[in-house]
Amino acid sequence: MVIVMQPGVSEERIQAVIERLTEKGFDVHRSTGVERTVLGAIGSKNGVDIRDFELLNGVQEVIRITEPYKLAGRTFQKEDSQIKVGNVIIGGPEVVIMAGPCSVESRAQIRTIAKLVKEAGAKVLRGGAFKPRTSPYSFQGLGEEGLKYLREAADACGLLTVSEIMDRVDIPIAIRYIDIIQIGARNMQNFTLLRELGNLDKPILVKRGMAATIDELLMAAEYVMAGGNRKVIFCERGIRTFENSTRNTLDISAIPVVKKKSHLPILADPSHGTGLRDHVAPMARAAVAAGADGLLIEVHHEPDKALSDGAQSLYPEQFAELVCELRIVSQAIGRKI
Amino acid sequence: MVIVMQPGVSEERIQAVIERLTEKGFDVHRSTGVERTVLGAIGSKNGVDIRDFELLNGVQEVIRITEPYKLAGRTFQKEDSQIKVGNVIIGGPEVVIMAGPCSVESRAQIRTIAKLVKEAGAKVLRGGAFKPRTSPYSFQGLGEEGLKYLREAADACGLLTVSEIMDRVDIPIAIRYIDIIQIGARNMQNFTLLRELGNLDKPILVKRGMAATIDELLMAAEYVMAGGNRKVIFCERGIRTFENSTRNTLDISAIPVVKKKSHLPILADPSHGTGLRDHVAPMARAAVAAGADGLLIEVHHEPDKALSDGAQSLYPEQFAELVCELRIVSQAIGRKI
Amino acid sequence: MVIVMQPGVSEERIQAVIERLTEKGFDVHRSTGVERTVLGAIGSKNGVDIRDFELLNGVQEVIRITEPYKLAGRTFQKEDSQIKVGNVIIGGPEVVIMAGPCSVESRAQIRTIAKLVKEAGAKVLRGGAFKPRTSPYSFQGLGEEGLKYLREAADACGLLTVSEIMDRVDIPIAIRYIDIIQIGARNMQNFTLLRELGNLDKPILVKRGMAATIDELLMAAEYVMAGGNRKVIFCERGIRTFENSTRNTLDISAIPVVKKKSHLPILADPSHGTGLRDHVAPMARAAVAAGADGLLIEVHHEPDKALSDGAQSLYPEQFAELVCELRIVSQAIGRKI
Amino acid sequence: MVIVMQPGVSEERIQAVIERLTEKGFDVHRSTGVERTVLGAIGSKNGVDIRDFELLNGVQEVIRITEPYKLAGRTFQKEDSQIKVGNVIIGGPEVVIMAGPCSVESRAQIRTIAKLVKEAGAKVLRGGAFKPRTSPYSFQGLGEEGLKYLREAADACGLLTVSEIMDRVDIPIAIRYIDIIQIGARNMQNFTLLRELGNLDKPILVKRGMAATIDELLMAAEYVMAGGNRKVIFCERGIRTFENSTRNTLDISAIPVVKKKSHLPILADPSHGTGLRDHVAPMARAAVAAGADGLLIEVHHEPDKALSDGAQSLYPEQFAELVCELRIVSQAIGRKI
Repeated sequence: MVIVMQPGVSEERIQAVIERLTEKGFDVHRSTGVERTVLGAIGSKNGVDIRDFELLNGVQEVIRITEPYKLAGRTFQKEDSQIKVGNVIIGGPEVVIMAGPCSVESRAQIRTIAKLVKEAGAKVLRGGAFKPRTSPYSFQGLGEEGLKYLREAADACGLLTVSEIMDRVDIPIAIRYIDIIQIGARNMQNFTLLRELGNLDKPILVKRGMAATIDELLMAAEYVMAGGNRKVIFCERGIRTFENSTRNTLDISAIPVVKKKSHLPILADPSHGTGLRDHVAPMARAAVAAGADGLLIEVHHEPDKALSDGAQSLYPEQFAELVCELRIVSQAIGRKI
Repeated sequence: MVIVMQPGVSEERIQAVIERLTEKGFDVHRSTGVERTVLGAIGSKNGVDIRDFELLNGVQEVIRITEPYKLAGRTFQKEDSQIKVGNVIIGGPEVVIMAGPCSVESRAQIRTIAKLVKEAGAKVLRGGAFKPRTSPYSFQGLGEEGLKYLREAADACGLLTVSEIMDRVDIPIAIRYIDIIQIGARNMQNFTLLRELGNLDKPILVKRGMAATIDELLMAAEYVMAGGNRKVIFCERGIRTFENSTRNTLDISAIPVVKKKSHLPILADPSHGTGLRDHVAPMARAAVAAGADGLLIEVHHEPDKALSDGAQSLYPEQFAELVCELRIVSQAIGRKI
Repeated sequence: MVIVMQPGVSEERIQAVIERLTEKGFDVHRSTGVERTVLGAIGSKNGVDIRDFELLNGVQEVIRITEPYKLAGRTFQKEDSQIKVGNVIIGGPEVVIMAGPCSVESRAQIRTIAKLVKEAGAKVLRGGAFKPRTSPYSFQGLGEEGLKYLREAADACGLLTVSEIMDRVDIPIAIRYIDIIQIGARNMQNFTLLRELGNLDKPILVKRGMAATIDELLMAAEYVMAGGNRKVIFCERGIRTFENSTRNTLDISAIPVVKKKSHLPILADPSHGTGLRDHVAPMARAAVAAGADGLLIEVHHEPDKALSDGAQSLYPEQFAELVCELRIVSQAIGRKI
Repeated sequence: MVIVMQPGVSEERIQAVIERLTEKGFDVHRSTGVERTVLGAIGSKNGVDIRDFELLNGVQEVIRITEPYKLAGRTFQKEDSQIKVGNVIIGGPEVVIMAGPCSVESRAQIRTIAKLVKEAGAKVLRGGAFKPRTSPYSFQGLGEEGLKYLREAADACGLLTVSEIMDRVDIPIAIRYIDIIQIGARNMQNFTLLRELGNLDKPILVKRGMAATIDELLMAAEYVMAGGNRKVIFCERGIRTFENSTRNTLDISAIPVVKKKSHLPILADPSHGTGLRDHVAPMARAAVAAGADGLLIEVHHEPDKALSDGAQSLYPEQFAELVCELRIVSQAIGRKI
């Protein structure tokens, strides 16, 4: 923490701040300039609220100098984390494609789609069973039954599974069927849920909240990792901005930024990120070009009959064509699909 | 729903859209202009995703014409909802002040503060027992013990209680101690929790999410109300914008907008909305001037020793002075404190 | 500037950074902690881009510790600036009301409105002659003729005038008719225009850009003040956020924040800030309650015939009633109208 | 325009709205449903402010159904506009690279850089002579002298030139040296400047404002095109959001959205979009992958000595390597560099 004193402040006030810092266990380094004095406070302990110092007499500004996260940061681990699930490695040279419908609707539906996405090149099957819907009057998912269908379909095709849970009471059910547990954007700061996931030995895919900064996304991983589970995968899925031509603004620049700050892998979800089928392929290509370790893409064999988010689901042929384009894009940066 | 066709589109495509609408149970009204055709679809059922129509051939734009919420809207109930808790009415002529520390820290602390805020004019005592903290390494609240202290302190002074819960497993405990159950900004779209609160006969104070539109805030109320609990109170507590001089941007204009769209009362929380003590009083006055039905204000007798959010807590004298100013402001619009 | 080095970085890299700082004329103060080294660089000269240091090997973060503005800041001048125009003081105990139509439409129109707003309590007459319109096909204002009508109407009632100019070529005309020259939100960073206004001896009212931070608003004043003209008045008029129930989000908290950072006065424009007549009065009261030094309000005797922005113009009776409410609100904070 | 009446509103009020619409020259189509009446108003003329109808008694909502722009829209012209400058076509199969320093600093500097970027594959030389700087105390550019150096350097290497102007008085000078006139983000709504550019026969590169919606960007083109100049090129350069890890959030999704709404070409500027050298390459690849017609990239042979924006300038070797990667990416979508 660095504390910038107001210009011309009295020595007495400076001493009061130094005392307060020492009390809180900081090592204080003082720089006295012609115009103003700056105090460096090193050895910050958790639980210090920098705003407490902002309000002391004579203080002009207080600046945090260490990131709030530890385990999730590059400082803690220099080399990239590679997360192994079954025979798939996330965060390695391969760009991993996860695809499937928004919701599992029936045994037949998920079987059909599983086969199609496997053939096109996907490694993981997605499909929601517990759906967070903005309206209480919309389809809310098939629950455990949906997860069973998802598992069967994945097993039949040699795919892994990824699916979202919304409540910690769903964890015991989820671990029976899901290989990668997804935490949705609306639950990125559901701290009781995150803490509980820290006790599992399963990869957790954490989606970025619509208004979450990249530092907050890293803190969500920290909650999981502090409990002992180091297998966290991020997913950029669009932030909320003033622009409303797209459902959200898929923040592609989050990909290189996360890669610089953290050793954990990051995926992108161009389906939720744009909300409209037409824009999925360009944004999927952009994410891979920017360095994403994988993609989460909605595919449906009959999008216009889908019970949720049909408008953003690709037709199977579109998906297959997109994977071909992505193969070329990934070569440009020395990766493969 | 209104569907705007592209200019010069063929009759065949128009018919295909009309058919699809009829299939989905809409009454279709067609307007054929010189340049373009517009289709009005009335009798919309829940579960229709307007984007499904956006993707049909020949469609240029689809516009939703009814609000997604029902019970929470002014269309459903014209007159203001007044919510009675003990001898206090929220949404009536009185502007209700709820005050207290960010967290309940000890029996003595909450007793001291309860007495001070009661004397200054507060009617409800606030104090957190389950704390949503962005860092897993920060103080997380006293849990049930904290709620007990809160209740005792409130009873000793003749105050009501408001406190946040973060998980549905905490409901049985909460209803024993809390008069108004608060749902925090990060849980505004925790739909499993909201649905559960619909079964209670307790007022629910729903804080606006940092990236939630006003329509989404109303939908959160809808989740609670659809379950049978009509006692919902909104709270504006700041949205996330590009401006970072303040912790959040307290959206004062949400107050008149919510009042126009909904019959439910709305409060403001200038403490979380600004994050810094110096800005609490101006924003509290602004909220009342704009028509807020009440305020949620953090007060601490020793802010610099507070275990959380001390920097945004008022000193008791500041709070007392603020209430005096608020009395005058409320007179300007025919209300009182 | 404070430079935080990466943990465990070599002494050689630290020395390279110190050398670079010394080269650029900084006084360097070093704090060596157990985990990391922090360098304080004092005596910053203009023209240093802090990002240049961010990219040096071994540097983790660079933090600016001085505000980029000087003349506009509280550090430069502790007491509030009071700007005298005719017999009106902006930034003193009186809250100054500026009112009138969006555009001057005719000699008769501006005369009628001038009389009405004067009677209700306004001190300055507003009215646009050069209109920045988002569509090239909309009414663009009467130009110099409009300014003439504005001046005549103001003189007839004993009012001052405020009006916007959009280009430096309009300055010679403007100074003949306008007492307070307004710079619109879209021109807040039109640096060639701002620089030119620095040569005048007229108050300049600078509206905050839709995406401008408060620090950037202060920098716009700095451009004017650096040229010698110290009479700058700010105006908060709404920022762009994700919320679209209102045209913009009037950032009321900017008022106390600007007051803390700068000695210059700040007004609010609730008409443009909300875009809809119904919300003007609540937001006008909120702005005064938060400490605004004045208001800019659109009033029209026949809003439904207005050539621009009729929807956000108050009827004269509404305006008169609002001023009465504002008188009470201003008393709450020891001011008057 | 579609006008949704409140449920249960009287016939009289509906008639009043119909009358008003007819008065304004609209063709009105009425849909009477069980619950509510909807009025379609076709034949909208420019200059109608939809908010005027929002305020009529009994009206619940008013929805615009036609885009405000004409000449810039796909409705006006179905096939892509290809803009020819010298022997380069912008908007054709080739992805056009424009590169060079942020500012022209000297004859030698621009010559050196011109040669390097030409060799690597650039077709257009960029370099600022009139610089919009947020601080009045920063380097403001060499003016006409800078343009002369830019022209000479470009001619020596067989490159075209692109450079920004900030004021209409600079047009006569600019047209002597610049092949593509750039309008910066801060001037995207400088309507007097845009209108003036409508009279030229030169391509105009319009950068998106930091808070401009895509529709507003198209309206800026409309201003130029309405004057007769159809050669407009867009450039996405980052929007302002709550995220502050990057200088701006480069909105890659704007590329497919603009391509859908407009026939005009769109470039991306990853240098200003990210503000930091490390993130330029990933975002440049992402932009091309998403379908950008070209890129604007800052390159400097000695970035740490650059007078402006050195931190976001690529080293010549980095630029050359990036162009190689971009060649592969562009193949993925059937284009070339």
